[in-house]
Amino acid sequence: MRISTLSIGSELIYGEVIDTNAGHIAELLLGCGLRVQRHLVVGDCEPDIAEALDELALKSDAVVVTGGLGPTVDDVTALAAAHATGRRLVVNEELKEHIRSFSAKLGGGHASDRQAMIPTKSTVIPNPTGTACGFYFIHGGCFFFFLPGVPSEMDRMLRETVLPFLCERVMHKRVILTTFLNVFGLSEPEVDGLLTGAFTGDHSVQLSICVTFPRIRITLRADADAEAKARTCLQEAVELVRERLGAAIFSEGHETMEQAVAGLFGRRRLTLALAESCTGGLIAKRLTDVPGSSAFFLEGAVTYSNAAKERLLGVPQIILDTRGAVSSECAAAMAAGARMAAGSDLGLAVTGIAGPDGGTDDKPVGTVFISLAAPEGCWTRRFLFGGTREDVRTLTAWTALDWLRHYLTGC
Amino acid sequence: MRISTLSIGSELIYGEVIDTNAGHIAELLLGCGLRVQRHLVVGDCEPDIAEALDELALKSDAVVVTGGLGPTVDDVTALAAAHATGRRLVVNEELKEHIRSFSAKLGGGHASDRQAMIPTKSTVIPNPTGTACGFYFIHGGCFFFFLPGVPSEMDRMLRETVLPFLCERVMHKRVILTTFLNVFGLSEPEVDGLLTGAFTGDHSVQLSICVTFPRIRITLRADADAEAKARTCLQEAVELVRERLGAAIFSEGHETMEQAVAGLFGRRRLTLALAESCTGGLIAKRLTDVPGSSAFFLEGAVTYSNAAKERLLGVPQIILDTRGAVSSECAAAMAAGARMAAGSDLGLAVTGIAGPDGGTDDKPVGTVFISLAAPEGCWTRRFLFGGTREDVRTLTAWTALDWLRHYLTGC
Repeated sequence: MRISTLSIGSELIYGEVIDTNAGHIAELLLGCGLRVQRHLVVGDCEPDIAEALDELALKSDAVVVTGGLGPTVDDVTALAAAHATGRRLVVNEELKEHIRSFSAKLGGGHASDRQAMIPTKSTVIPNPTGTACGFYFIHGGCFFFFLPGVPSEMDRMLRETVLPFLCERVMHKRVILTTFLNVFGLSEPEVDGLLTGAFTGDHSVQLSICVTFPRIRITLRADADAEAKARTCLQEAVELVRERLGAAIFSEGHETMEQAVAGLFGRRRLTLALAESCTGGLIAKRLTDVPGSSAFFLEGAVTYSNAAKERLLGVPQIILDTRGAVSSECAAAMAAGARMAAGSDLGLAVTGIAGPDGGTDDKPVGTVFISLAAPEGCWTRRFLFGGTREDVRTLTAWTALDWLRHYLTGC
Repeated sequence: MRISTLSIGSELIYGEVIDTNAGHIAELLLGCGLRVQRHLVVGDCEPDIAEALDELALKSDAVVVTGGLGPTVDDVTALAAAHATGRRLVVNEELKEHIRSFSAKLGGGHASDRQAMIPTKSTVIPNPTGTACGFYFIHGGCFFFFLPGVPSEMDRMLRETVLPFLCERVMHKRVILTTFLNVFGLSEPEVDGLLTGAFTGDHSVQLSICVTFPRIRITLRADADAEAKARTCLQEAVELVRERLGAAIFSEGHETMEQAVAGLFGRRRLTLALAESCTGGLIAKRLTDVPGSSAFFLEGAVTYSNAAKERLLGVPQIILDTRGAVSSECAAAMAAGARMAAGSDLGLAVTGIAGPDGGTDDKPVGTVFISLAAPEGCWTRRFLFGGTREDVRTLTAWTALDWLRHYLTGC
């Protein structure tokens, strides 16, 4: 079955809004053994939409369309769909009632009939969580599914109506299972080199390597005619990659680095205090993104000024005077100070020059010291990170979190 | 001139990598008076690419293609372009030399000839910063420009070669000028209501309202036959919107909230200390995203535990015992404590329940107190934010930064 997706919205063309729907739809369809072949984006412009529908009908067996079903005048998807396929746009009484009762439940306001108008000879796709209902019809031998652009509403309608409908109609059922192995600390050529020859001969699992700075994502996709077979193939491939890359893999699937670290803290029952200079709170922010992080994360100090480093972390003035705030000694004193002040098991500190200014010959922009204070001792290391201010801060936070991960896993 | 863009990459179809190139290209083209009409995405699959090129040739006068020009086997764009247009793929000696010398400069390694192969009857688009060179040719009366997917390389090649080439060939030159007014603190219907009737009659400026949570972006686009005219129209439209929305507009163009706040701190020559509980460092992170923030941002305390609130900020134990850590009294004590400890002009504190757990009948998830301590006094307010943990943290940080903005502008 040839599948396409179509996103409608002028704001998507101009990158003002990032289109996350298309990738999400592709991933969900893949779970049903269906691959999206092409994705098209057009603005809220009736002739452009009509042309896109015509063209996709020729190349596809099914098209999932999102966007342009809202209540305002620039939402013209339903109208364009009707015109392009020789249908009329009519008020659907069932939809009208749904929109009225939904608006009333939300405390009222005017319910526009505009959203109750769908093309003739089409079937409603119910939207349990909003007023923008969807619909589907067949045109030129191709199924067209129209869904609203709001991600949560679209997701539910896709899962509840579109996916079951499509799955039932797939002839030669394939099971496609996907997983990701997330790697930090190796370069793309290093990963490539370590995996060379790993999958020769075996074509049931497809491997792809993708850099999403600063981590590398390895996608493993097993394609088989039965679920058990796909699952076995995928599991074997995961083990093979794990064998080759070892501790450089920090998580599997959609787990983030901070989620992996938080999970390890939970299992080890240890606590943490942070002292951040150049990252300015980024490490604390990322750890506290994880629900329940208060169980291990006691406190963080964002010490931009020297006075704060002295007062909050007890960094000796002589270190600041003789070695400077960006130094191995200062980083170690910050980590130890944070740990002592908070009474935590671990203290983690970063200090460096994120730029764009502030670099010297001795300590150029990108110079960063990371220090980890633990009951067994203290480790400090100098790094030189490249790129923009944002890159340096991002790399510092990732590396610091990776240190915690390695410590907690006993590496 | 009908313009399309085509992104090539299987990782884009599946949303593993967000395609930021397309929006960026559209914006730059708009600056030359050229509107992108459609954007297509296909995977690294030769027949799909060939089909896309054929089809875009029919509908466009110029197509900007990105991706699939790298050195690995799954980069098949050049090959597909050659096959689809009846060309052969040949080694270009000029490119070969460029790749060799570029690789040597980077400290060597094997330079693959693969990237030196381009279709016959095409012209090289030089890449000053990488090995993946581009090329262009005419096919079916349509200009096709092929650029690498690496954003920085693509950007430079687009500006230096593609845009000048296209601008020269545009017949009926239009000048399209765009600006954004960024709004926080009003809902979409509120903005809509305030702007109703503002632009009746005047069709030279197009206004669109777009919610990019939690802010609202108003896009103003002036389209005229001369630059001076477009500039005047745009300026008048900006003033009109500013008159209606007033202080709810926090910035213009691409300026972020934190950049706006940092700019105000610079002009007012004031300093800041932060005390964050539920945002866990997010506010400090955002302010220190701005280069030069060390001039006004002295320190931040991420006080997740009660002990940290007492020790670092001097919050009286009786407040924590009787009112709790999530209370107006605690927020005020945190703000005052941060200000006093750091000796800063302003102290800003947030404390709340981000969820998903931890809520009570009295203080449900989403309850947040924000407090600002200044020389003139202290302001504290209770909020109830909806949504996920991430939404609550995001809204808290935005609202807190907006408080600073209002204070610094004297509102």
